[in-house]
Amino acid sequence: MRGVIIFLFCIWGFTANAQYRFDNILYGAAYYSEYMPSERLDEDIKMMKEAGVTIVRVGESTWSLFEPQEGVFEFAWMDRILDKMHEAGIKVILGTPTYSIPAWMATKYPEVLAEHTNGGKAYYGIRQNMDITNPTYLFFSERIVRKMMEHFAKHPAIIGYQVDNEVEARGINNRDYFIGFRNYIKDKFEGSLPLLNKEWGLNYWGMNINTWEDFYQRDGVTNPSYKNEWERYNRKRLAEFLNWQCDIVNEYKGNDQFVTHCFMPYFHNIDQVESFRQMQYPAINIYHDVQDKQNGQWIAYSGDYMRTVAKGNYIVTETNAQAIGWSCRHQHPPYDGQLRQNVYAHLASGANMVSYWHWHSLHYGQETYWRGILGQDLKPNRVYKEFASTAKELKSIGADLVNLSKDNKVAILYSHDSYHAMKFMPYTDKKHYPVEMIHSALYNQNIESDIVPCDQWTDFSKYKMLVIPPLYVATDSLLEKIDKFVKGGGYVVMLYKSGYCNEHSAVRATLAPGPLRKACGFYYQEYANIPDLPLKDNAFGLSGNQISDWYEFLIPETAKPLAYADHPFYGKWPVITENDYGKGKLIYVGTYPSLELLEKIILKTAKDAGLISSINDYRFPIIMRSGRNESGKTVHYVFNYSAGSMIINNPYPDCKELISGKTIGNEIKLAPWDVKIICEQ
Amino acid sequence: MRGVIIFLFCIWGFTANAQYRFDNILYGAAYYSEYMPSERLDEDIKMMKEAGVTIVRVGESTWSLFEPQEGVFEFAWMDRILDKMHEAGIKVILGTPTYSIPAWMATKYPEVLAEHTNGGKAYYGIRQNMDITNPTYLFFSERIVRKMMEHFAKHPAIIGYQVDNEVEARGINNRDYFIGFRNYIKDKFEGSLPLLNKEWGLNYWGMNINTWEDFYQRDGVTNPSYKNEWERYNRKRLAEFLNWQCDIVNEYKGNDQFVTHCFMPYFHNIDQVESFRQMQYPAINIYHDVQDKQNGQWIAYSGDYMRTVAKGNYIVTETNAQAIGWSCRHQHPPYDGQLRQNVYAHLASGANMVSYWHWHSLHYGQETYWRGILGQDLKPNRVYKEFASTAKELKSIGADLVNLSKDNKVAILYSHDSYHAMKFMPYTDKKHYPVEMIHSALYNQNIESDIVPCDQWTDFSKYKMLVIPPLYVATDSLLEKIDKFVKGGGYVVMLYKSGYCNEHSAVRATLAPGPLRKACGFYYQEYANIPDLPLKDNAFGLSGNQISDWYEFLIPETAKPLAYADHPFYGKWPVITENDYGKGKLIYVGTYPSLELLEKIILKTAKDAGLISSINDYRFPIIMRSGRNESGKTVHYVFNYSAGSMIINNPYPDCKELISGKTIGNEIKLAPWDVKIICEQ
Amino acid sequence: MRGVIIFLFCIWGFTANAQYRFDNILYGAAYYSEYMPSERLDEDIKMMKEAGVTIVRVGESTWSLFEPQEGVFEFAWMDRILDKMHEAGIKVILGTPTYSIPAWMATKYPEVLAEHTNGGKAYYGIRQNMDITNPTYLFFSERIVRKMMEHFAKHPAIIGYQVDNEVEARGINNRDYFIGFRNYIKDKFEGSLPLLNKEWGLNYWGMNINTWEDFYQRDGVTNPSYKNEWERYNRKRLAEFLNWQCDIVNEYKGNDQFVTHCFMPYFHNIDQVESFRQMQYPAINIYHDVQDKQNGQWIAYSGDYMRTVAKGNYIVTETNAQAIGWSCRHQHPPYDGQLRQNVYAHLASGANMVSYWHWHSLHYGQETYWRGILGQDLKPNRVYKEFASTAKELKSIGADLVNLSKDNKVAILYSHDSYHAMKFMPYTDKKHYPVEMIHSALYNQNIESDIVPCDQWTDFSKYKMLVIPPLYVATDSLLEKIDKFVKGGGYVVMLYKSGYCNEHSAVRATLAPGPLRKACGFYYQEYANIPDLPLKDNAFGLSGNQISDWYEFLIPETAKPLAYADHPFYGKWPVITENDYGKGKLIYVGTYPSLELLEKIILKTAKDAGLISSINDYRFPIIMRSGRNESGKTVHYVFNYSAGSMIINNPYPDCKELISGKTIGNEIKLAPWDVKIICEQ
Repeated sequence: MRGVIIFLFCIWGFTANAQYRFDNILYGAAYYSEYMPSERLDEDIKMMKEAGVTIVRVGESTWSLFEPQEGVFEFAWMDRILDKMHEAGIKVILGTPTYSIPAWMATKYPEVLAEHTNGGKAYYGIRQNMDITNPTYLFFSERIVRKMMEHFAKHPAIIGYQVDNEVEARGINNRDYFIGFRNYIKDKFEGSLPLLNKEWGLNYWGMNINTWEDFYQRDGVTNPSYKNEWERYNRKRLAEFLNWQCDIVNEYKGNDQFVTHCFMPYFHNIDQVESFRQMQYPAINIYHDVQDKQNGQWIAYSGDYMRTVAKGNYIVTETNAQAIGWSCRHQHPPYDGQLRQNVYAHLASGANMVSYWHWHSLHYGQETYWRGILGQDLKPNRVYKEFASTAKELKSIGADLVNLSKDNKVAILYSHDSYHAMKFMPYTDKKHYPVEMIHSALYNQNIESDIVPCDQWTDFSKYKMLVIPPLYVATDSLLEKIDKFVKGGGYVVMLYKSGYCNEHSAVRATLAPGPLRKACGFYYQEYANIPDLPLKDNAFGLSGNQISDWYEFLIPETAKPLAYADHPFYGKWPVITENDYGKGKLIYVGTYPSLELLEKIILKTAKDAGLISSINDYRFPIIMRSGRNESGKTVHYVFNYSAGSMIINNPYPDCKELISGKTIGNEIKLAPWDVKIICEQ
Repeated sequence: MRGVIIFLFCIWGFTANAQYRFDNILYGAAYYSEYMPSERLDEDIKMMKEAGVTIVRVGESTWSLFEPQEGVFEFAWMDRILDKMHEAGIKVILGTPTYSIPAWMATKYPEVLAEHTNGGKAYYGIRQNMDITNPTYLFFSERIVRKMMEHFAKHPAIIGYQVDNEVEARGINNRDYFIGFRNYIKDKFEGSLPLLNKEWGLNYWGMNINTWEDFYQRDGVTNPSYKNEWERYNRKRLAEFLNWQCDIVNEYKGNDQFVTHCFMPYFHNIDQVESFRQMQYPAINIYHDVQDKQNGQWIAYSGDYMRTVAKGNYIVTETNAQAIGWSCRHQHPPYDGQLRQNVYAHLASGANMVSYWHWHSLHYGQETYWRGILGQDLKPNRVYKEFASTAKELKSIGADLVNLSKDNKVAILYSHDSYHAMKFMPYTDKKHYPVEMIHSALYNQNIESDIVPCDQWTDFSKYKMLVIPPLYVATDSLLEKIDKFVKGGGYVVMLYKSGYCNEHSAVRATLAPGPLRKACGFYYQEYANIPDLPLKDNAFGLSGNQISDWYEFLIPETAKPLAYADHPFYGKWPVITENDYGKGKLIYVGTYPSLELLEKIILKTAKDAGLISSINDYRFPIIMRSGRNESGKTVHYVFNYSAGSMIINNPYPDCKELISGKTIGNEIKLAPWDVKIICEQ
Repeated sequence: MRGVIIFLFCIWGFTANAQYRFDNILYGAAYYSEYMPSERLDEDIKMMKEAGVTIVRVGESTWSLFEPQEGVFEFAWMDRILDKMHEAGIKVILGTPTYSIPAWMATKYPEVLAEHTNGGKAYYGIRQNMDITNPTYLFFSERIVRKMMEHFAKHPAIIGYQVDNEVEARGINNRDYFIGFRNYIKDKFEGSLPLLNKEWGLNYWGMNINTWEDFYQRDGVTNPSYKNEWERYNRKRLAEFLNWQCDIVNEYKGNDQFVTHCFMPYFHNIDQVESFRQMQYPAINIYHDVQDKQNGQWIAYSGDYMRTVAKGNYIVTETNAQAIGWSCRHQHPPYDGQLRQNVYAHLASGANMVSYWHWHSLHYGQETYWRGILGQDLKPNRVYKEFASTAKELKSIGADLVNLSKDNKVAILYSHDSYHAMKFMPYTDKKHYPVEMIHSALYNQNIESDIVPCDQWTDFSKYKMLVIPPLYVATDSLLEKIDKFVKGGGYVVMLYKSGYCNEHSAVRATLAPGPLRKACGFYYQEYANIPDLPLKDNAFGLSGNQISDWYEFLIPETAKPLAYADHPFYGKWPVITENDYGKGKLIYVGTYPSLELLEKIILKTAKDAGLISSINDYRFPIIMRSGRNESGKTVHYVFNYSAGSMIINNPYPDCKELISGKTIGNEIKLAPWDVKIICEQ
């Protein structure tokens, strides 16, 4: 088995780029020697070594030190850091610093600063305040990246480069940006104004246009088609920006170095697939709840998405060490054991590296209370000690954990377009695009899933079951793919509003749900916002209010009603149905379900799809995650997300627990916030 | 009897303008063929005919199609619609499209866009974003209106013209608009700065002015006198704008065509009397609650106001078909029977036409979820069917319902000035000008009323009883008219703060309530904001908290205390009093009453005034509304605003129920959301 | 004894300036004859005389009448007022009118108007809308002040001058103001950019600067060090402005006249010590709760602060007469007796004058509902009558009350810097700088205190006990003074976050609480935001939730734990500790305490410090305040802040009650909202 995997890896390595090879988990932190109140590089490295740090991330935040004046470059200070890290055997990821411009640029070239809608504008004094498409900004960005690469590319400490940092468009509305949008639209509609007017419905309120000069700017726009296309344009420009930087870095980087960018787990505003095109490892910055709210779900959600996009492993460039926040209103330091537990949660989703933000806590600036491994006292502390003991574990077992692969049979379909389009026409004060709730419903019942960006990827052949958040905006082609998936034997749980609009965010002029009508087995003409309501006859065995916010008046054709609202008017129409279609089945939920209800629906469907095994006897707070390691052995992570001790039946007898190195018997005992890692022998 | 009415009608027709003659109720919808995703005019007209549509409203929203480029006019597309409507026997109201400018105008003449206070400004991408006093805008407006009238005026399908749409000032603060205000003030004060300084109290904070150049713009103003005059100026400019358009349309229109404008039922920002001066029918767009909140009150309130202003009948140009909203947070489609019930509610207040917004639901744009008779699927549906059956009823009985007239003995005095002046000095977080609550208190007890705009009209001679919301700003003359009304035998229920300020929104330098002191029979020097409090000794037979927010410390002279707060301090002073004055009586309420308390006060006063009959034994959810039809016969509408069936004693024995065509006995049976129409024989 | 005090007074009088000598309490109101709707100066003075008014405050609000056009001056109207007041024996404080500019200035010199961050700007139409550092504004200000002083300085009615009014920076961000800030920073850092970059941590996000031209404006700044220095700069410019005006007035004023400025009791935005430098009497405008919330605490707090800053007596230039508010949402007229009670509360804290805002209520303008002694009816009323009877009492006993002195042993340390710095990094939605709660905890238990602005004054030698709100920002030197205070025998109650940052609002790079570690007897490395929690084992005898918002994980070295959170995680660390240190003791509260808990901690500490006597057997609503009058006799005020009658044991037998003139026995009887004044014989 191992041979096959290694072979596949080589193919991948070849078709992608040659790159850094992870042979163990990397564990470390971002490190800003330049932020220290006094010189202590040697002291820091000594403390890192003692703690078991194997990776540091440097350089992405300090353009002003690399180029203190326009055209004056200083790299020696970083050479010294890199040299000492290398000497200490600590690997380095070097960032390009383009997300935070130096003061001299804002002073001399104020046109680089972002302008926002309705007269708003960005000022200097914070990061990410520029128009990333401005040529002046791009000129200086290219120069600093090239200078840095020329200088640092060959440094043996460096295993990879991070281009920019947590990029987002953040409301850019400068003139050049808008003209770029107009040209993008011109291209998209092949110059046809009649087509544009028709598809966007610009006749409405008499706002159609007859020359491209009349195409109006974003500020006062109410048209949802325009707004959604503007969001696509944002995502396109961001991807272009990242690809452009990758191109530059790729000219210089060594074959054994990778390029990455750290995404944020609010995935809505960037096109991860396009942005990742030229990278070897996507990175993610995951900040999550801790203390009593620690549940691993956000880590798993972020990881499941990045792993799907990466078609393999990813790295975690930032995550909570001590408490975090831009104010000090949300200081929640982890309970004992939680830091360690989170590390394994990352690895259980396919991460190959966990790096905290950051090594030390800042003494000044906006993020004084975004605290690193060390506090401002720069002395060992509770979290430092837990880092050290976890690092020791990783040193011993990391090689068995690295390069985890998964073969999930369930996928969640994530749609950037639907997320945005529904935001322009909100139907709820709750989360309007409940993709996280869907993931929770799977996660809580130990059903692992991929998260597929379905606006870009529509090959669902490797999956047995799809769970689809409101797919409000979709091409006919995507909807046909879903139809085909069911017909061919797939199982689908689909939420309300799916199929309602076409790719222009315009409502389809057919009986809803449009092209999905056959697969769904019903149509509907009406819907309503509803208060919290129970289901009639305790459907799904649930009492109490289980649905809210939205109710479609489904009129079954071939579908079988599964549940109705318990309400004299709405209750005339079923709202959850199942439809046997071809060899598969589609369960439709025409209302906003409670998490409890959604879990029942998903469990029932997963059973029908044959995806349920003994591990699904357990549910949160016992969480199990699995994958195959490089040796082809299955590794099972068993987490206890609670403050109480737990004993469960061991579903993996004859396996070894890796941390303790012992074979375990019929029971698995878990301390509070504990994890066991069980590996096939 | 009928002869008299016809005679009166002729007189009216002569003194006003010759105009379209309603001989039946019109029932239909706004229709935008130009918004359809594909050609279906014939199909739509076929569906209209099948459903019984008799009127459509067209054209007001599509300037850009009439004039796609500056000076290029295209009317053929509308000719085709008008021709086909005419052919189908469907009448048409044609709108002038000036409320939504074409994109080319905003691009080429950005000065037409509205500027707001404090640097805000309007952008293109939405309707009603222009300075309606801008000469460029007026030039193009006049041209398009003339071109349209030249082209369409003779079309036989057209029964009337709507000028503009839901006009409001919406924060215009352009330079020309401000200079216009300065000139308006100069005129008003006959050029006397000393007078202005004195009346507005500009010495305060040393903000008096000594040349007109120093007269400062609206942005930073805190002075309530200035603010209130600014609101008057807004109303004046809007009325001028509408009258100016009417003038143009009147040059062209036929004698059998009317001019109208659709007002909104939040009446505060426009002077209906001035604006309506040159029209023949005022129109109103009424959007109201439905489902469990359907109660007909907002329909009655809007209708009572428009009927009073019209001194006769009015038309409803827009109202709820399916669910509405600019988001999709408030989708509440009507229950079965509610659409029909609302039609009769409009007619029961004096409407001669009910037209939905709109025929079909938009596939794109801001109002995608403001749903018409048809959904986006463009197929017959539940609401379409209820439209059709209601249209059938109307066809059979409409001639008996049209041109309803009323002779109410109760009037609510509505004051634009008081509404605004109190908003600048708010005393509550509830509605600060509870005119709707007053209307509800009458409506709920089946006491019908007119609503008189008392800033303009002060002849109360036809009424027996007035109910007066806080008349915070009033001329001495108006207050004297009220004094005289009571003295002459009238009954008045008056709310707190009345008489407090003069016409400059300046507090009178006399013991409150100033010129009302004699009629009220008390004075007061103090007042307080209070929490929710009960009345002492369960006055008016009410326990629980009945008053809140405001409490005047009344010191009776001739008045008799009716109620005190149950509070150790406030309870020293009565807060509800009655005063026999001349031949009449004035009940004063120096506090914010609960609806329950206000109903008791109003019922008691109406009894004293001799205005109570057996129909007042019923109250909401049984609502009765009456009037005389053209034949001089009294028509009684009996509504059941509840989800349960109702049986009541029939107060109109020997009458015929029009819909069923049957004489009814001692009982009236009403299904849920039902209505009976009982007509004298 | 008396001789000593008189001698001291002479010294003070000499070292400060010769000045007006208070030999009795002054009692009156601000008076704006120029705001009256009609001429009634004689009538007003007649009413004042009848009521016992002895002081009026005039002129500060009407620049536009003194200088109706640029360079045209009119003073006769005020001469007439001054003459008539003098004739009536009413003393006058004349204000300079610079806080509200005339309209002509804004029109002709719009550059005087304030500009705010992010493009905001001030408009004309309100007071305090100018850049007080603008040279044009200063030119006109100087001229009007000189003209007024030239004209009025010798008027015998005038006892003092008020420069400007309630000055604050109110967001000034004009170009000149910013350049001034840059120069201020340049001076502060002696031109060293490296030092600035280092101390403010500008390397963070690469925002360090390399030329002063790159020093960026306030708008987009996130750096807390910058923000806090900006606040200091605001305070500095305000103090300079006031001192500059004082210099001018001092050139003209007579030796028997004083200069003052009316501060606001939200002390945060102005440096009272610096601003008061050249004045003889600080004044304060105190607006406080009344009715059921009347408790005297805000009066005492404000008075304790001003008395400390004045090192003696102060005057009250504005306070509630009738109800107040910029809207009419908060009209709460005083209960009978409350107006009188408040007068004595002012005197009990060291005030020599109480003057209401204002004599009459405005008929127009923003403050129509900020009601004076007279209502808009300008007739005698309930409050006028209570004024008159109180004035009568003062006339009889005022000479025994004036020039009260105190020798408090407890001080609260107030830090402007800490207030602001914590606001930039908020840790709570409650008041983030609970100095008022600390004062309440003392006040409620009848422990009198001074309030020392500790950023400026660090000589604590006259005190036995300090109570320290979160001293988040402090120099090493200040912290060392506190250390020394404890070591030398002082008692300290200190709240969380003290010592955390240095004078640049940068976190100290040492174990917290930095230089306080020894005196505190612990260190800590972690902290958390907590929900409401109880203390373990009902520490301090308190059950229920007693702590919230913040929790420091204290690790005692020499300190003794007093309380822990009742929580499985946080409860591992004590959060209230006491530490015997040298001859003194420091109680540290590492959490946000309830008022109840804080009272217990303070009482315990005050007991340990030997500061508790029999009067502390009483607590709110019985409040006792004391001081020595000019004759050296101790005067005790005993207040009943409740709506019920009270009888207490008399702690001062053999003393005379001044108002009644009677010796009282073993009991003091207090009517609702009553006060007794008991004087040693």
